[in-house]
Amino acid sequence: MSGPRLSTNPYKGTRDFYPEDMVLRNWFLGRMREVAERYGYEEYSGPIVELFDLYAAKSGEELVREQIYHFEDKGKRRLAIRPEVTPSVARMVAARLEQLVFPLRWYTIANLMRYERPQKGRLREHWQLNMDIFGEPGIRADLEILSVIVDLLLAFGADSSMFRIRVSDRRLFNDVLRDALGADQEQVQAISKAVDKRSKISKEEYKQWLAESGIRPGKIALLDEVSALSLEELIARLRSESRGAADMRDLFALLGETGLAEYCDFDFSIVRGFDYYTGTVFEVYDNSPENRRALFGGGRYDDLIGLFKKADVPGVGFGFGDVTFQDFLEIHDLIPVSLGRAKGVLIVAFEETPYAEYVKIARELRAAGIACGIFLDPKAKLKKQLAYAEKKGFAAALLAGPEEMEKGTVVLKELALRRQVVVSRTECLPKLKEWLGT
Amino acid sequence: MSGPRLSTNPYKGTRDFYPEDMVLRNWFLGRMREVAERYGYEEYSGPIVELFDLYAAKSGEELVREQIYHFEDKGKRRLAIRPEVTPSVARMVAARLEQLVFPLRWYTIANLMRYERPQKGRLREHWQLNMDIFGEPGIRADLEILSVIVDLLLAFGADSSMFRIRVSDRRLFNDVLRDALGADQEQVQAISKAVDKRSKISKEEYKQWLAESGIRPGKIALLDEVSALSLEELIARLRSESRGAADMRDLFALLGETGLAEYCDFDFSIVRGFDYYTGTVFEVYDNSPENRRALFGGGRYDDLIGLFKKADVPGVGFGFGDVTFQDFLEIHDLIPVSLGRAKGVLIVAFEETPYAEYVKIARELRAAGIACGIFLDPKAKLKKQLAYAEKKGFAAALLAGPEEMEKGTVVLKELALRRQVVVSRTECLPKLKEWLGT
Repeated sequence: MSGPRLSTNPYKGTRDFYPEDMVLRNWFLGRMREVAERYGYEEYSGPIVELFDLYAAKSGEELVREQIYHFEDKGKRRLAIRPEVTPSVARMVAARLEQLVFPLRWYTIANLMRYERPQKGRLREHWQLNMDIFGEPGIRADLEILSVIVDLLLAFGADSSMFRIRVSDRRLFNDVLRDALGADQEQVQAISKAVDKRSKISKEEYKQWLAESGIRPGKIALLDEVSALSLEELIARLRSESRGAADMRDLFALLGETGLAEYCDFDFSIVRGFDYYTGTVFEVYDNSPENRRALFGGGRYDDLIGLFKKADVPGVGFGFGDVTFQDFLEIHDLIPVSLGRAKGVLIVAFEETPYAEYVKIARELRAAGIACGIFLDPKAKLKKQLAYAEKKGFAAALLAGPEEMEKGTVVLKELALRRQVVVSRTECLPKLKEWLGT
Repeated sequence: MSGPRLSTNPYKGTRDFYPEDMVLRNWFLGRMREVAERYGYEEYSGPIVELFDLYAAKSGEELVREQIYHFEDKGKRRLAIRPEVTPSVARMVAARLEQLVFPLRWYTIANLMRYERPQKGRLREHWQLNMDIFGEPGIRADLEILSVIVDLLLAFGADSSMFRIRVSDRRLFNDVLRDALGADQEQVQAISKAVDKRSKISKEEYKQWLAESGIRPGKIALLDEVSALSLEELIARLRSESRGAADMRDLFALLGETGLAEYCDFDFSIVRGFDYYTGTVFEVYDNSPENRRALFGGGRYDDLIGLFKKADVPGVGFGFGDVTFQDFLEIHDLIPVSLGRAKGVLIVAFEETPYAEYVKIARELRAAGIACGIFLDPKAKLKKQLAYAEKKGFAAALLAGPEEMEKGTVVLKELALRRQVVVSRTECLPKLKEWLGT
């Protein structure tokens, strides 16, 4: 070949999943799927690209301006590779408002792209489980979403010492800022952005950000004070009625009664970066000192369907990404040592025997549900073929040379135990089923 | 909300999968996965974007110029949304040449995007099963790939009357054109493009295309004559030795011996659009008069790894798209009538009973592996809640009002059969397991 050779690296911030990586990914996405189905959620899926306008409307400025991969198609439509799925699912729900039976419990497992500096826990492409309830305005839906999250983590062997769900409410946040700080609408917006960023920036940057938004130093100190209050203390500070406060109180009461309070804390500083959240918001934190960061989060977004149609369909949900989750599983040692499963039988190919015979045996075994491959090069030595079978994780090898073919027998080798039996062709299938447990 | 509302349509040529669509997609992709695993193939996965250069090198001119979604990232790298996976998997194999144990049997199920006019069987985003063998130059690998394809189709209840695999060889094609038509390298290239397009263009366009490439009318007539010959007749016409001819002869002999010839025909006009094919090429055709078109295809590409590294790693494989396949399943009536499965139990919520009680019951049932949802609005009438359970496909409903709570009983309703039993809380779980068969 001529010309320089191409790089074998995947694009920066994206990953190649080799079979051993895929076993891990399939294991944890599969388990998530089981939990979702146990909660009665139905799977959906949307396109990898959407019209850019879908994100421009509500996703929050930073995300729209800086993190979306977008481009024009030949028809001059501005497209985006989806950076999140919530706008897509809202679009899908809006498209079939009349036909769908609410409330919906929906989930998807989707790959997303964001342009960001690749770093621990953050890549440009990641996979995310999204679960949402549409059509239920009450906190029982919020409770269910928190319950799902707890069960998702427990399903991997996590316990309450390993993670914590920090919960707050956007309306409560707004009401407190207005009542306690006298902040106007614009200042509330600026403060929420600063609070959301706080753990990622220095104390100075944080103060400067607030100062630039016209928040005076006295108010910043007051904000710090308020942020440290318990839910009860905060509610006591409010001078007017707050729907957010009432919902938070009721939600935490229910969390207590259902045994879920063990996993959840109220935290006033949780606001979430997306502009579309309207009520309950939450973030799941890793408790490990090595990884003290938000694993993922979500919340209630009651106005998203309104972007598409005049309709009142509240939503609440979350997106749970694989990159931070894999870090979590590793840090807490929750990945089983042996995930790859035994892969059936390798049929050894002897040069003296017509290759078609092996193909026929393989087809019989597969028809009976046994996974099976044939060594493709009959010229290779037996030792090499058996070594290949072991390296590839086959549980057994089937040998049928000219002698066995004549007698109508096969030699079965159980590779891990290094034992073998000679059986007739009719006994072969039950013996393999016994060994492989299929 | 202000401003015009957004469209609820997905981007042209892409699809939304609602839960009922997803049940269908999961069914057929799941069954494909089973067949792949039964053949001992290992799953891998690559990124949704790749550097554009990956496709510029070998994919074939038309595809590169017109059908790829490509754009620049902020670092001025030219990226493409993958239009196929073969270049990605070749890249992945090249990256780990030293560590991988060959031959590899790999598969993936991936979404791809191509800019084309949406029409029957062709969309802009589709999902594709790809299966490949790397590291085996002999036709036994080609045979296995054809065998997998047959089993994939048989797994859905198809038989040999419904489809046909048309097989040829690029080297044989080249040798015949050189020997029988006296075509030079450039003319061979032009003729192969014209032949590949032939079924999609008119006879006049086809002839014009060839004439523009300097093929004289006499040669076009000769090409038509040659195209109609059997493999044996073609081989007889060759004046020099042809590796492609020898391999085709051996492959068809093996297909005969293994019972697969029933599904395969030699067809000189199969060349495939991609420039990277180097040997065996094939296309799977729907036999139905309503859908007489190629469902999918593949072939041998022995030089792709060379794009990345100096190494000789032959490959053979195929990509099997969901759009044409779904058409095939529908035309041949191969989709089971009832695909949605029963979704467990809906717990009815009574206003008089603390909601937390229902959450606790639900958590118990789920821990025992029973899928279960709670009706989220305790104010709703019983009739409405039960109607919801039926519409959502729940198999059973669990009722526990104040009376049952006091007695420690629950009422279980089997919805399809419209029968109910009253059982104690301890009998509830075994009874549900019996009903749901879990």
